[in-house]
Parts: sequence; C-alpha cells; structure tokens
Amino acid sequence: MIWAAWWAAQAREREEAGLVRTLRPRPADDPTTDLAGNDYLGLSRDPRVVEAAAAAARTWGVGAGASRLVTGTLAVHAELEAELAAWTGQPAALVCSTGYHANLALVTALADPSTFVVSDAHVHASLIDAVRLARARVAVVPHGDVDAVRRALATHADQAPGGRALVLVESVYSVLGDAAPLVALADVAAAYGALLVVDEAHGLGVHGPGLVAAAGLGGQPHVVLTATLSKALGAQGGAVLGPVALVEHLVNRARPFIFDTGLAPTSTAGALAALRVARDEPWHADRVRARMAALAAALGVPPAAGAVLSVPMPSPHAALAAQADLRERGVRVGCFRPPSVPDGVARLRVTASAGVADAAWDQALAELARVVGAAREAA
Amino acid sequence: MIWAAWWAAQAREREEAGLVRTLRPRPADDPTTDLAGNDYLGLSRDPRVVEAAAAAARTWGVGAGASRLVTGTLAVHAELEAELAAWTGQPAALVCSTGYHANLALVTALADPSTFVVSDAHVHASLIDAVRLARARVAVVPHGDVDAVRRALATHADQAPGGRALVLVESVYSVLGDAAPLVALADVAAAYGALLVVDEAHGLGVHGPGLVAAAGLGGQPHVVLTATLSKALGAQGGAVLGPVALVEHLVNRARPFIFDTGLAPTSTAGALAALRVARDEPWHADRVRARMAALAAALGVPPAAGAVLSVPMPSPHAALAAQADLRERGVRVGCFRPPSVPDGVARLRVTASAGVADAAWDQALAELARVVGAAREAA
Ligand SMILES: Cc1ncc(COP(=O)(O)O)c(C=O)c1O
Ligand SMILES: Cc1ncc(COP(=O)(O)O)c(C=O)c1O
Repeated sequence: MIWAAWWAAQAREREEAGLVRTLRPRPADDPTTDLAGNDYLGLSRDPRVVEAAAAAARTWGVGAGASRLVTGTLAVHAELEAELAAWTGQPAALVCSTGYHANLALVTALADPSTFVVSDAHVHASLIDAVRLARARVAVVPHGDVDAVRRALATHADQAPGGRALVLVESVYSVLGDAAPLVALADVAAAYGALLVVDEAHGLGVHGPGLVAAAGLGGQPHVVLTATLSKALGAQGGAVLGPVALVEHLVNRARPFIFDTGLAPTSTAGALAALRVARDEPWHADRVRARMAALAAALGVPPAAGAVLSVPMPSPHAALAAQADLRERGVRVGCFRPPSVPDGVARLRVTASAGVADAAWDQALAELARVVGAAREAA
Repeated sequence: MIWAAWWAAQAREREEAGLVRTLRPRPADDPTTDLAGNDYLGLSRDPRVVEAAAAAARTWGVGAGASRLVTGTLAVHAELEAELAAWTGQPAALVCSTGYHANLALVTALADPSTFVVSDAHVHASLIDAVRLARARVAVVPHGDVDAVRRALATHADQAPGGRALVLVESVYSVLGDAAPLVALADVAAAYGALLVVDEAHGLGVHGPGLVAAAGLGGQPHVVLTATLSKALGAQGGAVLGPVALVEHLVNRARPFIFDTGLAPTSTAGALAALRVARDEPWHADRVRARMAALAAALGVPPAAGAVLSVPMPSPHAALAAQADLRERGVRVGCFRPPSVPDGVARLRVTASAGVADAAWDQALAELARVVGAAREAA
C-alpha cells in the first residue's frame, strides 16, 4: 500500500534522526511535580474553578450542542465574553473553542491574498497556519525587530497605498519567554494604518489582564488580542478581543468560528471562574513572578517575561539527559530540541507555576540547580 | 482607519444582502424545544455523562494543562481513544480538541503540494480548510459521484504513478443529510492505492459505531475516519481513527494536534461516558431513526440518513418566516439559505433528537407540519 509504505518510511526517518515523539498518559495519582505544563496560576484545580465547571455541566449539559451561530451560544459564553473584554480593557470579545481556533478565525477573516502580513519570526504555529490558510502575502521579520517591521510596512505602503496590513506578535513568546516591544510596535502599526495582533496566550493572567493592558494599549482600535483559556485560566478555549466591529466581522466571516461547535459549558464556566480568581486575587500572579525570579537566579539565567523559563543547555543530548534525570527525581520539565527551537540551541523549559506547593517547589528548585549545574560542568 | 473603514464597508454589504448573522445567547431556563442542535441522542444532559464530566474536573482539574505531547495526555484520553477505536472497529484513535482540529490535523499531516486530493463538493468547511492549509492539489468532484472520483484518481495515477492520493467524503453530509456510497468509494480508493477519509461527524452514534463500521469497512487499512465528540456524543472534541502507523504519524507531524492544548478532561470524560451509553443502549439511536421517519412522513419529504432533516422551502424568505413562526410557538429549527446551500435552495434544518421528551416532540411535529404546509400553499 502506497500510504503504509510512506508512513513506514517517515517513521524510519524519525527514528534515524532520534526525533520520535510519543504520548505518555499521566495517571490521576501522578506524584511528580509538574513544571512542564501551562497551568501557570494553578487554577485548573482551584476548587472554585472545578465546582463552576461541574455546575455548568448540570445547568447546560456537557456540550454546547451546536455552532455558536445556531443554538450553541449560551448565556455563560456571553458572560465570559463580557468579563474578558472588561478585564483586558477591550470593547468586545469572542470566545472560540481553542486558542488555535481564535488565531485561525481572526487571521482568516481579516486577511486574503491582497492583505500584507508582517509576522515575527517566533510566532506560534497557530498564527503561521492562520496566515497560510488565509493565503495572505507574508513577510517574516527577525525576532523582536521593530525596525524590520517598520521597513516592511513602509515598503507595502509604497507598493499598495491604503492596502490592509497586519502585524503578528506575541506579548510573551512561547519558546524563549521574552516580551514583545508592544508600545513601539503599536506606534509603528499606527503610523502605517496597520492592525497589530498580539497573542496574549502567555501574558494573560501571568500579568493580570495581559501585557497590552499593562502597556496602556487596552482599547486602542488598532491593537487586537487573541488569548487562550487553556493556560493561566486553567480550562480550554480561546478568545479574540478588540473593537465591536471586528467581533461582528468575525461572527459573519470567520469559518473556524462559524463552522465549529461552541466551547463546552464546563470549559467556559471554568475559565470564567478562573478569570474572577485571577482578577480579584493578584497574589497568584505575584507568586508566579516571584518564583520565576528565584528559578532564574538558581539557574543563573535571566528571568523570563512570562511563567516559562527557557534554560539553554550545552547540547540536545545534555538537555534530554537532564530531563530524564529530573524525571527520575520526581520533577517533570519540558525540553526543546532542534528543529523546534528557532536558533538551534537545545533548552529545558521550566514553568514557575503558582500551583505547586511550597515544599515541592523548593525541592524541585534544588534538584534543578544540581542537574543543570552538573550538565554545564560536564560540557 | 483603513481597517475600521473596511469593517464598516463589509457590514454594509451584509446588511444590503440581508445576510447579517448575530449571536443570540440562550438562557439556562430556555423553554423552547430545540430541534436545531446536534445533541442527537440527548446525551449532553444524560446524568451519567454530566456526572462523569463533573468527576473528571475533580480528578484531573478543568484543563489538560499542556499539549498532549508535553504533559497534557491524561489516562482518560488514552481510555477514550481505546474505547473509540474498539467501538468503531479501528486499530487506533487520536483525540483532538475539536472535530475541526481532527480534520486539519489529519489532512495537513498527510497532504502537501505533491499530494492529490479528491474532495466531494459537499464536504464540511473544516475539510476544505484542511486541504487549503495543506496546499494540496485538489479536484472537487460533483456530490456523491463515484465515477467522477474514479476518473480523477485514474488521471492522477497516469500523471503521477505511485503518487499519494486522498479521497475526502462524509458518511452523512451535513447540509443535505444524505449518505455517501461508502462501499463503492472504498473499492475505487483501493483500486488506485488512495486513502479514503470518511468524516463520521453525523454518522457516529446515530448509526451506532458509524456507517463505515456498518458497511463492513471497519479496520480496512485504506479507510480512515474522523469524528467529532460534540454531536451525538454530547461533549466537545474530535478524533482521527485508523491504522496505528497513521496515528503515530499524526503524533509526530500534525501541527494542529502537536501545538494545541489537550482536550479538557471534562469533555473527554463526558464523551467517554456518552460513548458507553450509545454503545450499550442502542435504543437511543433507534429512537432518532424512528423520529426521523415520522418527521419526514409528516413533512412529506424523504427521510435523511442521519439525524438532521433538510426541508426544502419555496424561497429564502419563506424559510426565514417559517423559522420565526416556529420560534414564536416554542420550536427552534435551523435555516439554511444561499450562499450556504450547495444548490441555491433554502431549507429548514430539523433535528430528530432523541433528547426531546415525547409530548414536546409530538407538539413540535404538529407545529412543523402546519407551518411547512402553510408555506407551501402560499407559494
Ligand atoms: C502563543 C500561543 N498561541 C496559541 C496557542 C494555542 O492555544 P490552545 O492550546 O488553547 O489552542 C498556544 C499554545 O497552545 C500558544 O502558545
Ligand atoms: C461534517 C463535520 N465535520 C466536522 C465538524 C467540526 O466538528 P466540531 O464542531 O467538533 O469542531 C462538523 C461540525 O461542526 C461537521 O458537521
């Protein structure tokens, strides 16, 4: 069979390159300290969040039952949208079934082959896929380079005066954990009539209402946000936040929103309860940032702007060995190896999660310092 | 602002065309009889399904917390995958966060510009988007036309001997509710070494383990399935079902799976509980089919192959008026108008849901017969 032969050949290639990925189911009573996940504030297991999800299943049923445009918009979706918008300082919000869908919905409804997209080299797979799906013209600019964004927009403005342009960035980048220069980017976008799209996947919650709000850009009509409900808000789903006219445009035009079942009531109510905790109890986010500072100091690297520290390792092999060593000692961390790092440097990925108990955190930090230190000495 | 002006212009176009879509949040105590949704077996509110979701929130937290490849694969995902595969007669399953993601994941991991895709003219937006995202070469063939599929594959086999080809169909089509000729399609695919992809979104559950299994094609290595957990299984999420080598390929290559947070534990456990009810209590599906027969007879149209009846109406205006009239009388139905119908004919979309109580169902049927009859007489 042509296909079976192809799958086998692809599998051999992966094996030879040492790049086989496998799924390892986690048991419910997993005793490891999880510093690999994205439940940054620990809200996924907060009793208020858990009970809100359970109550929503009883009130609404387990599924939304239909597309948001048919009968799948529930009062709890509207409530979450209103509170997300108010919290982030945006006029309106639209909740999607994943953060990936939010990025696909936004970009495909805004861009077509006549639209010019300037994309930071480090943006997430969902934004890259969104641009591909929209078939927009794209210029990928060096990471964090505001001047390159300006030059790309200037060239486009010369070539297509009055044409629509988008700039795609993340408030905190997922791989390196660095923050985007949002104020400078918003200025450049404004100067050229472009729309700045900021993915707040790793900023929302860790920085309260997000880094766009923190930069005083909340509600600026040329700055729109996407977010996920699956990281700091501990649930599942995504959202687009921006002008009312944008949200109406998406409701009418965004295929990945229109032709998709609405977000499950349990995830919707869970995210809403988590938003209220994150909003009303800022100490969860404070704890993440304090832990990030301690973590970075213990490992001798600069702290990240978000909840995830990227720790450069001497080699891909050393990174894998450190990860396995930590796993043996009850600490789970992530590992980035080429080709999924932008610069070829293998890294450990460590989350400064507020959800880990103090004793476990302290012990994990000690193990980390020891294992990373040993790997560096050996190199 | 360039963008604001564009949004406004687009909004005016929609208004002038009479095609404005708006979201109408449903209250928790909505008294209408819902014949517009896709909770075909009524399992979204089954107490066993609801309590499974609530228990999962307590056991696992509200969110999966990470990508399936990092720490977001929970034992409950593996359990759902095993039972989905066994039920549908497939060697393996991969659960994704939406049905849309399942189609994007499958097609983008299999197809690239060198792959030839034959797509039925009526396939769902998620499959169309998947082909676009994969940038595959595509031939759209007339709806239900097996000979056209054969001709397309023959031409491709001549041009690119040994090349990879996919055929995309739905077991029950979402707009017209008709079934695909699966056995003939599987024969044609086999003859040309092509892979037949069958989206069982509207077949699974309504026809027990789905129409691929019913056709005796379960486990054929050249027939792979996608499914959604958000319709008959009453939850949220999707799945790809097929050979083990295919699932391993997706785990390693499917960006919309790899770079997305795992399906929420509540939705996963809810879908698993619903699968068990659908599998062990076939009378829920029997009830859908009996109701479909009664509904079709009452409206004088042939029954659909799935749970959704498409009722042609004399005009888009008549369809809208009938929908509004029914809404006044406490019955919610869907409405398809151009441009979202493949043949320009406006239709009411009525679900023969097993979840509606007998008295409400009988009353809704009487209202429907009256309103549709009156619309036809007036035409
Ligand atoms: C920057 C960024 N955007 C979007 C997403 C997708 O969000 P979700 O997992 O909710 O689909 C992720 C991670 O998953 C992300 O890191
Ligand atoms: C045929 C078909 N495939 C896929 C989907 C997408 O599934 P989901 O809503 O779970 O994303 C749908 C409907 O929503 C559908 O009708």
